[in-house]
Amino acid sequence: MSGAGEFELIDALSARLDPPDEGLGIGDDAAAWRPGAGSVVVATTDMLVEGIHFRLDWTSPRDLGWKALAVSLSDLAAMGARPGRGLVSVALLPGQTELVEELYEGMSDLARLTGSRIVGGDTVRSPGPLVVNVAMLGEAYPDQLLRRDGARPGDLLALTGTVGAAAAGLDLLLRDDRKSLERPEAVPLLAALHRPQPRLAAGAVLAALGLRCAIDVSDGVASEAWHLARASRVAIEIDVDRLPLAAEAVALLGRSKSRDLALSGGEDYQLLFAVSEPRLAEISDALGDGAAPTVVGRVTGECPGGRVTFLASGRPIETTADGYVAF
Amino acid sequence: MSGAGEFELIDALSARLDPPDEGLGIGDDAAAWRPGAGSVVVATTDMLVEGIHFRLDWTSPRDLGWKALAVSLSDLAAMGARPGRGLVSVALLPGQTELVEELYEGMSDLARLTGSRIVGGDTVRSPGPLVVNVAMLGEAYPDQLLRRDGARPGDLLALTGTVGAAAAGLDLLLRDDRKSLERPEAVPLLAALHRPQPRLAAGAVLAALGLRCAIDVSDGVASEAWHLARASRVAIEIDVDRLPLAAEAVALLGRSKSRDLALSGGEDYQLLFAVSEPRLAEISDALGDGAAPTVVGRVTGECPGGRVTFLASGRPIETTADGYVAF
Repeated sequence: MSGAGEFELIDALSARLDPPDEGLGIGDDAAAWRPGAGSVVVATTDMLVEGIHFRLDWTSPRDLGWKALAVSLSDLAAMGARPGRGLVSVALLPGQTELVEELYEGMSDLARLTGSRIVGGDTVRSPGPLVVNVAMLGEAYPDQLLRRDGARPGDLLALTGTVGAAAAGLDLLLRDDRKSLERPEAVPLLAALHRPQPRLAAGAVLAALGLRCAIDVSDGVASEAWHLARASRVAIEIDVDRLPLAAEAVALLGRSKSRDLALSGGEDYQLLFAVSEPRLAEISDALGDGAAPTVVGRVTGECPGGRVTFLASGRPIETTADGYVAF
Repeated sequence: MSGAGEFELIDALSARLDPPDEGLGIGDDAAAWRPGAGSVVVATTDMLVEGIHFRLDWTSPRDLGWKALAVSLSDLAAMGARPGRGLVSVALLPGQTELVEELYEGMSDLARLTGSRIVGGDTVRSPGPLVVNVAMLGEAYPDQLLRRDGARPGDLLALTGTVGAAAAGLDLLLRDDRKSLERPEAVPLLAALHRPQPRLAAGAVLAALGLRCAIDVSDGVASEAWHLARASRVAIEIDVDRLPLAAEAVALLGRSKSRDLALSGGEDYQLLFAVSEPRLAEISDALGDGAAPTVVGRVTGECPGGRVTFLASGRPIETTADGYVAF
């Protein structure tokens, strides 16, 4: 009469995590901790569903755990927040206990690298696809939040790092392009897809240096530019010729396809941020080589409903490459 | 190229919620708010899966929304925490947009009653069952947390309110007992199942009056008693004859069946708490009629592995009614 199976699974999962630094962790009704003095709590949640966001024949459970955490950590990065305590919910088939243990190992890998911790969760049965939800709590100073509504007319728009790699990797898998998948260029593309690196350091730098507007490009540059324009009530121009495309994507898929994937494919987890022109050099220096920014557009004026214009060769284009739309 | 479908759904869902009281709500990469001075953050997450935790032919989407929030709020109640900000993830089929809007209305109903708010979320496609995950953040004073590991030898164990109602309602549905379902006694049983009332006020009272150990009986008295015994490293006796059974359950299903359902059925969302005998009368007065406590057992001694003995007619019983076990 002990619910032994549940206890054993909780023990097995807890053993894969670092112990909580303070307060209560896994094992009580809820986790509890004392927030930093003067900080605001920053909270985000993301759900990954088998067959929609991942396929278990393409992604190892360990990579999936990494990615589930990375997606939420990227939201914290886009707010300029420090990580982070995570609550992990998993719905799985009865036979998937080993799978969820490996998934926790992958989360633990990234948690250690980023100074985050898993402090609680819920593991339930599912009759259907594997579902992983991560709610991630971070902290930030209230006057240093990177918001979506902070872009102002005259601002430049810049991207950290390169874009298109993860979507290019997915494209190779979707087309089962074995010839390309065997090329060395495929390795970083698949790594970008399976083990994305949330831009926590870059977000922290942008926030500390006083920038006020960023968004992560998890759903592609196009869709995220629209979010930013809408929240900031501004008109934006994006010069698609200036997108910092991942070199390996261009090598395997060509420039045009890579550009479309960067615009609409997403999963790059880079930051798209607004910066006034005089501050660009300073910000660029502070971000360093790993997250070196590329200016890809600018805010052309106010626009209550938000508007994004995409330019190619200096002229507005009709874009058929739609941003990822959930419905 | 706007991702208009996603925007429209976010707007439709946001319209069903109260605006955030401060800070950022739905619409940015993450929600942010300033925690109360001197408080700890209390965080919990719960996932409900169609076909495992609910059936849409038995539960309306609005009730499901209420319940998804109630489950997590009950965890906060069991910690003595104040509600609360919620992050809601929903995985749904493409045709279920209206359903998720009604689900948000049900969450909003309970949020208003309890002083909670939905501050963020993720709505994604699913090829399979509807999945709802709520991560709920509350606050508590660090010296007033109700923990699972706070029971001490000599303590009495008491339950708020009555138990067995929700499991009795579910039993009627599972057996398709139409004759009983048409009786007036079925109404409160189904209400207990579909619109459970998290014991936030009772948890706050227990915490404020200095108690240190409680758990919510979401998975049945038996399973939760084991959790408590294990965390507190004590031996517990539960007198099953003293369980405060819901009168309507007894009327429709008899005492023996109702008792088994209360032990192993769960979903009552009452609090099982430890209290020293001299303080019982004071606590009972403070809880008031709505959550009047019933002593159902006691802590008999220390026991490193935890142990629960169930007594009937004063003698230990072999119990086959297992606490709900997820695996």
